[in-house]
Amino acid sequence: MSPLSKYLPILTWSRSYDSAALSADLLAAVIVTIMLIPQSLAYAMLAGVPPEVGLYASILPLVAYAIFGTSKTLAVGPVAVVSLMTASAVGQIAAEGTADYATAAVMLALLSGGMLLAMGVLRLGFLANFLSHPVISGFITAAGLLIAVGQIRHILGVAGGGEQFFDTLLTLAGQLGATNPVTLAIGLGALAALYWARRGLVALLTRMGLGKTLAQMLAKAAPILVVAVTSLLTWGFDLAGRGLRIVGEVPAGLPLPALPSLNPGLIEALWMPALLISVVGFVESVSVGQTLAAKRRERIDPDQELIGLGAANLASGLAAGFPVTGGLARSVVNFEAGARTPAAGVFTAIGIALAAMFLTPALYYLPQAVLAATIILAVLTLVDFGSLRRSFRYSRPDFAAQMATILVTLGRGVEAGLIAGVTLSIGLYLWRSSRPHMAIVGQVPGTEHYRNIDRHEVLTCEDVLSLRVDESLYFANARALEDRISAEVAARPALRHVVLMASAVNEIDASALDSLLSINERLSEAGITFHLSEVKGPVMDRLQRSDFLSRLTGEVHLSQHGACCAIRGDCTPRVGAIGRA
Amino acid sequence: MSPLSKYLPILTWSRSYDSAALSADLLAAVIVTIMLIPQSLAYAMLAGVPPEVGLYASILPLVAYAIFGTSKTLAVGPVAVVSLMTASAVGQIAAEGTADYATAAVMLALLSGGMLLAMGVLRLGFLANFLSHPVISGFITAAGLLIAVGQIRHILGVAGGGEQFFDTLLTLAGQLGATNPVTLAIGLGALAALYWARRGLVALLTRMGLGKTLAQMLAKAAPILVVAVTSLLTWGFDLAGRGLRIVGEVPAGLPLPALPSLNPGLIEALWMPALLISVVGFVESVSVGQTLAAKRRERIDPDQELIGLGAANLASGLAAGFPVTGGLARSVVNFEAGARTPAAGVFTAIGIALAAMFLTPALYYLPQAVLAATIILAVLTLVDFGSLRRSFRYSRPDFAAQMATILVTLGRGVEAGLIAGVTLSIGLYLWRSSRPHMAIVGQVPGTEHYRNIDRHEVLTCEDVLSLRVDESLYFANARALEDRISAEVAARPALRHVVLMASAVNEIDASALDSLLSINERLSEAGITFHLSEVKGPVMDRLQRSDFLSRLTGEVHLSQHGACCAIRGDCTPRVGAIGRA
Repeated sequence: MSPLSKYLPILTWSRSYDSAALSADLLAAVIVTIMLIPQSLAYAMLAGVPPEVGLYASILPLVAYAIFGTSKTLAVGPVAVVSLMTASAVGQIAAEGTADYATAAVMLALLSGGMLLAMGVLRLGFLANFLSHPVISGFITAAGLLIAVGQIRHILGVAGGGEQFFDTLLTLAGQLGATNPVTLAIGLGALAALYWARRGLVALLTRMGLGKTLAQMLAKAAPILVVAVTSLLTWGFDLAGRGLRIVGEVPAGLPLPALPSLNPGLIEALWMPALLISVVGFVESVSVGQTLAAKRRERIDPDQELIGLGAANLASGLAAGFPVTGGLARSVVNFEAGARTPAAGVFTAIGIALAAMFLTPALYYLPQAVLAATIILAVLTLVDFGSLRRSFRYSRPDFAAQMATILVTLGRGVEAGLIAGVTLSIGLYLWRSSRPHMAIVGQVPGTEHYRNIDRHEVLTCEDVLSLRVDESLYFANARALEDRISAEVAARPALRHVVLMASAVNEIDASALDSLLSINERLSEAGITFHLSEVKGPVMDRLQRSDFLSRLTGEVHLSQHGACCAIRGDCTPRVGAIGRA
Repeated sequence: MSPLSKYLPILTWSRSYDSAALSADLLAAVIVTIMLIPQSLAYAMLAGVPPEVGLYASILPLVAYAIFGTSKTLAVGPVAVVSLMTASAVGQIAAEGTADYATAAVMLALLSGGMLLAMGVLRLGFLANFLSHPVISGFITAAGLLIAVGQIRHILGVAGGGEQFFDTLLTLAGQLGATNPVTLAIGLGALAALYWARRGLVALLTRMGLGKTLAQMLAKAAPILVVAVTSLLTWGFDLAGRGLRIVGEVPAGLPLPALPSLNPGLIEALWMPALLISVVGFVESVSVGQTLAAKRRERIDPDQELIGLGAANLASGLAAGFPVTGGLARSVVNFEAGARTPAAGVFTAIGIALAAMFLTPALYYLPQAVLAATIILAVLTLVDFGSLRRSFRYSRPDFAAQMATILVTLGRGVEAGLIAGVTLSIGLYLWRSSRPHMAIVGQVPGTEHYRNIDRHEVLTCEDVLSLRVDESLYFANARALEDRISAEVAARPALRHVVLMASAVNEIDASALDSLLSINERLSEAGITFHLSEVKGPVMDRLQRSDFLSRLTGEVHLSQHGACCAIRGDCTPRVGAIGRA
């Protein structure tokens, strides 16, 4: 593959593009476009930007991703969690509805695009690995709850809520009396219709004789029907005059690509949110992309995905948009509708551009409560308390990190929540690996196997201590090994030999090497020889680059059994002479 | 052991105290006292506090450590690196010589004592493990260079230098012309005498017929002789009148224990330096204590050591002192002079107290250049560039962390240096473990062993891919495994089975579990079954608490060979059918 094709995947797939792919991509694009129009408006509302900006963010970014991305079916654009993060970051700088707010949203997209691009070029995709699954899952659950609670006011038709989860709930409770009945009726109606479209519509359509795939495609288009019906009702009965808030005037046309003026203060205030948005967007997008690619035995290149998403966000920023990423729901629809290449994304972009040019007058009477209902139903699928229960059963440290992420996100906001989760999960990982599992081992009678003396009936002898350490040795746990050996030696006056069984040691870093040397010296002062056994090839290669082997008082034995035989001069251990100290 | 004896080790050793121990401890105390007097004055100068404060910091802390510490022979008091860190932290808050400076130094000792005590009670000693050996060694080397360069002005008799290494050198170079010849003569003379006392004196004394041990003890007392001779010269020839700076009036007597008034601003400014001083002091002290304890098959308890050092620093703060820790040089002298119990420390404290009460007039004519010479010779033993060379050969990430620590410490100061080193070493560790070593394995002909196909002549077959991963699976490397398997599968259209050989996997966290489930689903979509082999007992116990085993399309096999036999239905592999993709 030429370097150019590597960075421009479009050069590869476009070469074999044919009319079969074209018709498949066109069909998928039509379906995704219909689904994306209400979603784009809704996520723009969530991000706090004008509705047309949601459309802008669904045009150029799709084209950019089609050129640079490696997933054949990923659909990029505004998504719920990233829109919430945008609102949270930009809301700290400017008031919603102001020109400063719009500029900051654009700058956030540009910064995030630049960072993703830089991470891709520098191959720093592994940074995203530090968002552990429990942290990202807890974060998405909490973000879903935050978003849903934040939208309730649009359903009730009351004034704005608080910044965080709990004060938003409190504010809402205080304003229940001010509920607008017309808004509530439209909002609940839309919620019910959208919910039914997800749960019951496919069954109904198949009973009516439609094929399953067609029924599923039609069901995905239900939101546009809800939009049309509620808009008509609002227009016909003048519901806006009875307190229902509507989208109103949406400027038609497309923005000219433009760069905002560079404001260093803005960049300083936004770099951290931009980084978090980049990482969260990347993680979400890659997991969707990988899942879809695997279904067709294709693969995506995570580092090139960074470049693709970076280009998409830069494009969004140039087109007066806001941060975007690959979304789960729309990508699945794109995939199931049969999209074969990223060209489907380009066709979708054309569809959205046509909508932005000619369809905006039709959006005038669209109730905001309907957009809120769209958002609420979309994000409630993100809330996953089952994951919390699974983490609790499987791993307490993971559960702790997940719980902390959820609570801090709900109580202190998205940035604090993510940072708390990442810090805690790294801290807990280091803490666990700093206290490695170690076991004194003895020989299973009649075999050459050595097992934990606490778990098995094994043979040991008084003057040889065999200790197995079940972790790579590095700075954080080197001292734990020193402490353990000191304690064992101090408790056993008859000890003459210590064997460290290194079958699970994948690495020994310089700190651990120093510790082994200290152990060797201290044992030597006490008249005890120090041996290693079952050292792995790469670890041994490394040890040979130091003076450890020449200073070791004992030897490195190929097997634990070999060590025991060599030390004792014979292979018959005595029963149970060494136990726990 | 009763809980009281655990927290008060003195209750244990004092019970069997006898006259033999008493005379051994008394002798050691006399020798250590003689060594400590000039050292305490010198480190007080280094920390920027008046000379008598150095003596105060060598009295009560020794008593406190004798009560709470677990090392029989560790000698606590002011040490070079901690004194430098004190000067650096306090110097940012107040000017040397002011009352605020003294108050801040006391507060630093109290804060550091409180932190050590809290870490001990909460058993947080493992936090010190995150200071890797290369980082601490780089830090001590850089600190030694900083200290030595900072003392040169006292040898030249010129005005103060800069804050950091390079500007200090520049300032010194600019002031060479102002060198005071008398100061230079005394300074170089003291340096030469002290150097010879270390290198040539023992040999001379043994040639004169003294026993080797006695000769070594006498050589340790040489600094006090240099102090006496240079003081006499200064007095006899009125060298102070010719520009030689002397210690001058040192107040006699002891301070009454007192608490400084609590100043929240001061605490906020000093907590970070206090934490770093605590950790560095603890690491230095524990490594000395462990080395000495091992020589007599004793052991120290690191968590109780935190309490002992915490008590020592609180005592130092109460006695108007500054941060202290266990020092290498004095502990070795104490050990070699035959100290048997911490009572030697109490006797040393009495000796220093007597000196503070009655000996201070004798210190009037002591030239500061002699103290500087003492410091320079002491710290040059800390500088260890050999460690840098060893790190470079053994491990590049360790070398990078060490080099960064040295350069940042020299260029930006002790705190920035330590923080940079710790951050970089943790980051590099995470980075390495995020890209684990993975190998496709095949059967060594005629055996049941499976080895890396890139390193060995092994047998494989077309439709089974056996992948061994040499690292615990956790959030940072889970995606690397997904990527690798995706890539291998995409490259091998005939693949029917994937076996993950988990013999080196000590843990699978919740993120890695999710990744394995994703891999399982994706392989299943592609018609490939997923198997595990050689899963360790504790890992398997955990997996049984999740639904992984019921969702796994393949099976968990006890051995890799068993997996291959079971999958193929027979045990005869074909030659070289699977290779690198």
